[in-house]
Amino acid sequence: MGASMARNLMKNGHKVIVNDVVPESVSALKNDGAEVAQTAAELASRTSTIVTMLPSNPHVREVYTGSNGLFSTASQDSLFIDSSTIDPAVSQEMAAIASEKGSTFMDAPVSGGVVAARDALLTFMVGGPEEKFDEVKSILDCMGKNIVHCGKVGTGQASKICNNMLLAIGMIGTSETMNLGIRLGLDPKLLAKILNMSSGRCWSSEVYNPCPGVIEGIPSSNNYEGGFGTALMTKDLGLAQSAANATNSPTPLGSLAHQLYRVLCNNGYGKKDFSVVFQTLKEEE
Amino acid sequence: MGASMARNLMKNGHKVIVNDVVPESVSALKNDGAEVAQTAAELASRTSTIVTMLPSNPHVREVYTGSNGLFSTASQDSLFIDSSTIDPAVSQEMAAIASEKGSTFMDAPVSGGVVAARDALLTFMVGGPEEKFDEVKSILDCMGKNIVHCGKVGTGQASKICNNMLLAIGMIGTSETMNLGIRLGLDPKLLAKILNMSSGRCWSSEVYNPCPGVIEGIPSSNNYEGGFGTALMTKDLGLAQSAANATNSPTPLGSLAHQLYRVLCNNGYGKKDFSVVFQTLKEEE
Amino acid sequence: MGASMARNLMKNGHKVIVNDVVPESVSALKNDGAEVAQTAAELASRTSTIVTMLPSNPHVREVYTGSNGLFSTASQDSLFIDSSTIDPAVSQEMAAIASEKGSTFMDAPVSGGVVAARDALLTFMVGGPEEKFDEVKSILDCMGKNIVHCGKVGTGQASKICNNMLLAIGMIGTSETMNLGIRLGLDPKLLAKILNMSSGRCWSSEVYNPCPGVIEGIPSSNNYEGGFGTALMTKDLGLAQSAANATNSPTPLGSLAHQLYRVLCNNGYGKKDFSVVFQTLKEEE
Amino acid sequence: MGASMARNLMKNGHKVIVNDVVPESVSALKNDGAEVAQTAAELASRTSTIVTMLPSNPHVREVYTGSNGLFSTASQDSLFIDSSTIDPAVSQEMAAIASEKGSTFMDAPVSGGVVAARDALLTFMVGGPEEKFDEVKSILDCMGKNIVHCGKVGTGQASKICNNMLLAIGMIGTSETMNLGIRLGLDPKLLAKILNMSSGRCWSSEVYNPCPGVIEGIPSSNNYEGGFGTALMTKDLGLAQSAANATNSPTPLGSLAHQLYRVLCNNGYGKKDFSVVFQTLKEEE
Repeated sequence: MGASMARNLMKNGHKVIVNDVVPESVSALKNDGAEVAQTAAELASRTSTIVTMLPSNPHVREVYTGSNGLFSTASQDSLFIDSSTIDPAVSQEMAAIASEKGSTFMDAPVSGGVVAARDALLTFMVGGPEEKFDEVKSILDCMGKNIVHCGKVGTGQASKICNNMLLAIGMIGTSETMNLGIRLGLDPKLLAKILNMSSGRCWSSEVYNPCPGVIEGIPSSNNYEGGFGTALMTKDLGLAQSAANATNSPTPLGSLAHQLYRVLCNNGYGKKDFSVVFQTLKEEE
Repeated sequence: MGASMARNLMKNGHKVIVNDVVPESVSALKNDGAEVAQTAAELASRTSTIVTMLPSNPHVREVYTGSNGLFSTASQDSLFIDSSTIDPAVSQEMAAIASEKGSTFMDAPVSGGVVAARDALLTFMVGGPEEKFDEVKSILDCMGKNIVHCGKVGTGQASKICNNMLLAIGMIGTSETMNLGIRLGLDPKLLAKILNMSSGRCWSSEVYNPCPGVIEGIPSSNNYEGGFGTALMTKDLGLAQSAANATNSPTPLGSLAHQLYRVLCNNGYGKKDFSVVFQTLKEEE
Repeated sequence: MGASMARNLMKNGHKVIVNDVVPESVSALKNDGAEVAQTAAELASRTSTIVTMLPSNPHVREVYTGSNGLFSTASQDSLFIDSSTIDPAVSQEMAAIASEKGSTFMDAPVSGGVVAARDALLTFMVGGPEEKFDEVKSILDCMGKNIVHCGKVGTGQASKICNNMLLAIGMIGTSETMNLGIRLGLDPKLLAKILNMSSGRCWSSEVYNPCPGVIEGIPSSNNYEGGFGTALMTKDLGLAQSAANATNSPTPLGSLAHQLYRVLCNNGYGKKDFSVVFQTLKEEE
Repeated sequence: MGASMARNLMKNGHKVIVNDVVPESVSALKNDGAEVAQTAAELASRTSTIVTMLPSNPHVREVYTGSNGLFSTASQDSLFIDSSTIDPAVSQEMAAIASEKGSTFMDAPVSGGVVAARDALLTFMVGGPEEKFDEVKSILDCMGKNIVHCGKVGTGQASKICNNMLLAIGMIGTSETMNLGIRLGLDPKLLAKILNMSSGRCWSSEVYNPCPGVIEGIPSSNNYEGGFGTALMTKDLGLAQSAANATNSPTPLGSLAHQLYRVLCNNGYGKKDFSVVFQTLKEEE
């Protein structure tokens, strides 16, 4: 993901310095014209505009605040754009430290997968000070097509986990509904059509229907390969639950959706597209 | 509901004979030109095309198979169109009896409320033999604008309860999501906009958003008055659970949605629009 | 089950006439001294005290009210004792018909499995008129050791489905808790001991712990063989949900327990003991 | 809570130095013979055996690792016993820091309320190195009657949150079951008796039945006053969910129990005993 983003920055004329734990990713980018920094600390000593894309909370904490981290060497007035999907509270924590150092940290998680990253079609949900948004947008425009300012720092994360929680609920709900309808004698395509012209419609029923054969060219019609992995969805639902806990927000369906996806992961479906929940509901006694 | 339907039939030139347990409804229709039958049995003895609209399973059983019921006097080749929302198994039971008597019973539950009934804008989901569908459609066209043939008898009901189960899941999910996002610092209108341009979108987020003020002119912006009552939604979710039980279909979110709406009913929200679930989630500690 | 019950009646000196759909069961009982009736109707014509043990609602309806059913020939003042586990509403329906005919129908579902049936150690939960309880008890005493009068007809069923709903909740809860504790580094036997001396204790943690090896001689320590099958538990939870629907009783955990057991059935665990839920939760990612 | 614990230490002949943010608590203890430290740092500079009792994760982090915290002045070979109920991961974090400094940190959360604290009847669940357990036990024996060694550091917390998760599930399950049974016509005391002689029994059905009048002298028979507050239970369920997240442990019922208790808190029941869930389920439509 990060590699595609770096390439799109270079395509748009930016000079890019890269750092990654995987040597192969780094050397491929080097071949494509990127400079290389051996550590996060070195990177921050050589540029004041830094985009990060990391897997989870502890990685972000380590890369920013570790002994060889970005904050250890960053100059004043640095701009940090973090595209990781993490807990909004961690984004706020990083932003507070950046602010003490006279710099700015903004969260900018993405939606869209590997293909959207390659084709610069990502959506970025950005949280942070409004006066910095234009600058951030000019950079993210190289990598995405929708750059939305969501509010103060952390609201980019908030937007993403809210969206994905509702997405998961809609997907499981659509799967339950399609399965129930089929067992009651309805033709799957006709049922999808009826839902989509009625109040039951949602993104999962309309453009990503989990029942194989209803829509061609999506994971459900390809043995649930590709798409958005169940393990990644489970991770995002975990972030939603942390945020719900921290704010005392009741999320009964979001919470159950998280549990159901966790069971799918534990049962070996982690790498399948998250629409695979349909298949696991339709088993017959 | 039935009264508006009868008026729309008369407007389209049909002679209508009515029967109802509420004398006021009957006399109002009489003033408008309807003839009156004292019992269901009398009604069936005077016409062979009969439309019924009843509250629940036992009412349908009584009106059709009771000692003064429609089947007691109906002529062969009668056509029964039942617009009640009931268990598909009961529709199939009635259809089997009708068939033994040489008649046809089709289920045709509606979606759309009192206003849609008045304006002949209802959607009818019709289950029953294909060869009778044109005749049924010609009648229902007087009262609705979408007449969909869903398959054999019972599939009209199946379509409606599937749609409403997914609708309830989407509504509660949207309510949880809007509330969580707001507590995380997002502006409600901006959050709705982000969801609606992303994969979280559903009917409830787009056209019936449960957060007051996001969309004008809907129940959530009018103290949850009008609209589709929580008690009616709870009834439909109960039908969905019966159908799921009868077919061994797992519906974890549908089942929890049913429980959550039942608690709302028990807490006095039965007559509020079903989007009121948002309000009950947002209470502060 | 029924065969063991019949043998225990004979052991206690009762003359027994049997009827069953499985010829092998009938001939085995005949060898042991039972007389045989070819139909339910014949049975009811030859005795006025009748004990039934049937799998589900429709079987009870058929055996009692079918054209060759018990009610078709039963003499006035017959006593029907139904040990099936069914919907309390169906028990009440049968009791009403019996009452019209001058007879008495009492529900008396059992708890305890095949071994308890053989050894006359069943518990019977009896619903029906108090003045008939002594007579019923004198018969059931031959087959069980606890005969409890629960109230009017249907309350025997109510007691059983209430107990089994709470049992299922306790079993899934214990399974979640044991698994969580083990993953947090606790020794399973020590965790069970701590729960059992504290407020977390329940029947499932104390005498039927679902974690293999914690207690010897129970299904969890024998690959979940024997015991109380997941499919039977799922059936009882379905009855609980019907009863909850009929009485508008909120049962969020009972409802989710039902869904979780249904998924287990659909995934092929129907014949394993219901404590197998532990195994399905503990799978690793 | 901490005050009672300090008094019981003094009663057993220990010299006690106290520190607290509430001046009244401190001066009351001073009157009873305790010495006073102005800060945590001062306290740790004056003794090498320290017992802490704090409300939540951040308080523990602050008191131990803050600039005026215990670790800032503690001598080598100090023994820290933390009786707070917190995330096991935070206990492990504190233990790791203590260990680096040549000291020992053990978690020892309690079960039992204010009265048990006063009467030295608490249960302590202790996590930490076995070779230190005897020393810890000799201190905790002054304040409690059951001192259980659960394993390495963090397992005391793990035991407590496991117990309380299962307790919450049992309490909600018992409430659903009692309410369903009553609506089905069963007498509450008889139902409780039947459950308690059968496999449905649990601590909540036997000694803390949530239905008013079934057991005298407990919160449910006193308008749900006293006992274990819903807000505290909700906090513990939040810790259970964090631990479940951190270990990928599926807890569908535990998760739903958490959500249900959170809604109760938001609806104003936070200070009522956690058995109040019965009352909120039994409302009539």
